[in-house]
Amino acid sequence: MRTDFPVVGVVGGGQLARMMQPAAINLGVTLRVLAAGPQESAAQVIPDAVVGDEKNVADLLAFAEGCDVVTFDHEHVHPDHLQALEEAGHIIRPGRQALLHAQDKGVMRERMTALGVANPRHHIVATPDQAAAFAEQLPPEGSGDRSVVLKTTRGGYDGKGVWLSDATDIASEPFAAGVPVLVEEPVDFRRELAAVAVRSPHGQAVAYPVVESVQIEGICLEVIALAPGLAEDVAVQAQRLALQVAAEIGVVGVLVVELFETTDGDLVVNELAMRPHNSAHWSIDGAVTSQFENHLRAVLDLPLGDPSAQAPYTVMVNALGGDLDGVYGTYKHLLARDPALKVHWYGKAVRPGRKIGHVNLTGADVADLRERGWHAADYIAGVIDE
Amino acid sequence: MRTDFPVVGVVGGGQLARMMQPAAINLGVTLRVLAAGPQESAAQVIPDAVVGDEKNVADLLAFAEGCDVVTFDHEHVHPDHLQALEEAGHIIRPGRQALLHAQDKGVMRERMTALGVANPRHHIVATPDQAAAFAEQLPPEGSGDRSVVLKTTRGGYDGKGVWLSDATDIASEPFAAGVPVLVEEPVDFRRELAAVAVRSPHGQAVAYPVVESVQIEGICLEVIALAPGLAEDVAVQAQRLALQVAAEIGVVGVLVVELFETTDGDLVVNELAMRPHNSAHWSIDGAVTSQFENHLRAVLDLPLGDPSAQAPYTVMVNALGGDLDGVYGTYKHLLARDPALKVHWYGKAVRPGRKIGHVNLTGADVADLRERGWHAADYIAGVIDE
Repeated sequence: MRTDFPVVGVVGGGQLARMMQPAAINLGVTLRVLAAGPQESAAQVIPDAVVGDEKNVADLLAFAEGCDVVTFDHEHVHPDHLQALEEAGHIIRPGRQALLHAQDKGVMRERMTALGVANPRHHIVATPDQAAAFAEQLPPEGSGDRSVVLKTTRGGYDGKGVWLSDATDIASEPFAAGVPVLVEEPVDFRRELAAVAVRSPHGQAVAYPVVESVQIEGICLEVIALAPGLAEDVAVQAQRLALQVAAEIGVVGVLVVELFETTDGDLVVNELAMRPHNSAHWSIDGAVTSQFENHLRAVLDLPLGDPSAQAPYTVMVNALGGDLDGVYGTYKHLLARDPALKVHWYGKAVRPGRKIGHVNLTGADVADLRERGWHAADYIAGVIDE
Repeated sequence: MRTDFPVVGVVGGGQLARMMQPAAINLGVTLRVLAAGPQESAAQVIPDAVVGDEKNVADLLAFAEGCDVVTFDHEHVHPDHLQALEEAGHIIRPGRQALLHAQDKGVMRERMTALGVANPRHHIVATPDQAAAFAEQLPPEGSGDRSVVLKTTRGGYDGKGVWLSDATDIASEPFAAGVPVLVEEPVDFRRELAAVAVRSPHGQAVAYPVVESVQIEGICLEVIALAPGLAEDVAVQAQRLALQVAAEIGVVGVLVVELFETTDGDLVVNELAMRPHNSAHWSIDGAVTSQFENHLRAVLDLPLGDPSAQAPYTVMVNALGGDLDGVYGTYKHLLARDPALKVHWYGKAVRPGRKIGHVNLTGADVADLRERGWHAADYIAGVIDE
């Protein structure tokens, strides 16, 4: 019937794949998903989900057979498997070489340094003693103490794989994973920002407005687009940085550069992500073109859509699972209280602290939007009764 | 997993059911669809489509078994079958009694008259002679001629089932269908408007901004939201009319009142529709809450969302099938020419004159939006080369 419309395969059945489906429906593009089971978030809403093991190269290869292009819901597919897909002639976007910078924090730091992008001082180490030796070179903090940030170079997400450690008593947990450890100076930052770019294979790229990301214990809980009070020149610097990194690394699709805005007003790169990302969920309701639509356009090498904001501010607040079993029961209150609340549900089982959805609110009064967003998230989590 | 979230069944697998899926995904509500085949527009994007015959009451009853509430993609399910569904205890929204007003133009005209709503002068007839007798009572038009509009009371859509006939030589085709025929005076109108309301079972209702609908040969080709230059009091009158009709008839879900704005500035009811409708497709990109989301909220008896426009104007232009086979091939040009163009594709086989998608554009300059929308639609249809 629609033989000229392509099929995009998404490896991973989480909420990011799920949120690509509305964009795919609008464009008329067929989405397929490789999921661990039929009840995964994306498999619930994308027909004919392929159930398979994304750690198994045979499953990956079989899945890719039916797709014109393959993209990802996360960055955890093993580089050897990506290579096997590429060698079998499948089109993988982003490609293996680009993805490596989101998979391995050591590779990322070395590349950022080579590009002249501001990094925290850092070193890649194999033992706590090596980390302690690096820490001794750091200037003491105001208190006279020294601390360091330890990160497993591979496998971390949502605050997992990151430790803040006393420099004189290096934590041992990061070394238990058996992968190199990145040891970094703690950055004295005012707030966290994110610059999101989307790039297509032929090199077109767009940059979304720079946002503020509010993280608690390493988990992004709130995003404010645009970042309030951000100086125009700093915003432009952040957008250029994301576009530069996307071009240099050869990213196809969404690239997120998580940034620290230091107390001195400088920008320092924290992390990279190469997939639709929590820091741009606001774009579903707040931008002319959502990150999900632009990710699909990019992996299909279609012209990218306008990333402009549609309102002065959009606030996104994540809903975390709490004590409530019956989340649907909260809708009567939430939707009646706030007819402009945009709910995005992931269809996941509720577990305390798990991201189970998010809400977006657009408008001009950022304090009002934040209050309404947090009310909804707290109510869903069962933190407040009314 | 999501045991507290309900299942909404949609009878009919066309583009209206398809466009409910993004809204259902966001709300976390599960959509099921009864479609004629797996390649129907909605069945492509909604998992586990039930293939069945919506004219077969057994298929309808079996489909409804798995649903918490059943709604519709069109108004053509036979009233006897709706009754069977209701008698079997299934929740049907809108219900049989309300739907009858969208299924039978004679019933609709009688009810509008009883409600004191302005109708064209009309009569329900069984023969051409009876239509001619009605026509003789009408005042002659400016030219001295008399003409009448003939409509089959049941089964028409998109201009089908409607004839303009010379009063002295009544067309015979309308009588061939074997259903009563509605004969009406032609309305001398300036333009066509549509007032869209959404009503929930507990009686909450919202009214969308009143739009102008541009129809050619009975097919809606363009919608401008809000209707340019519409007097505020007329807009309020139209919204009140839609809300009144929805409440009096007991509509649940979307109600569309298609209106003539007469050359004297009065409003006259043309048709009713009781489902998401072409005249509110603009709301996907132009309103805080789309008609599809509000339809789902209504049939689930959830609080309704804000129907406000997000921009001064949103223009929707339908894309009709033309000579082009490879519609996807138009995307490179269309999306590059207009990064803010919002494409909505239906996944239907291209046939000349068939609605295969639409585009939305939001902004402040209605002439600019219309030019861009028509460019896209004409390019898709193959009317223009560049």
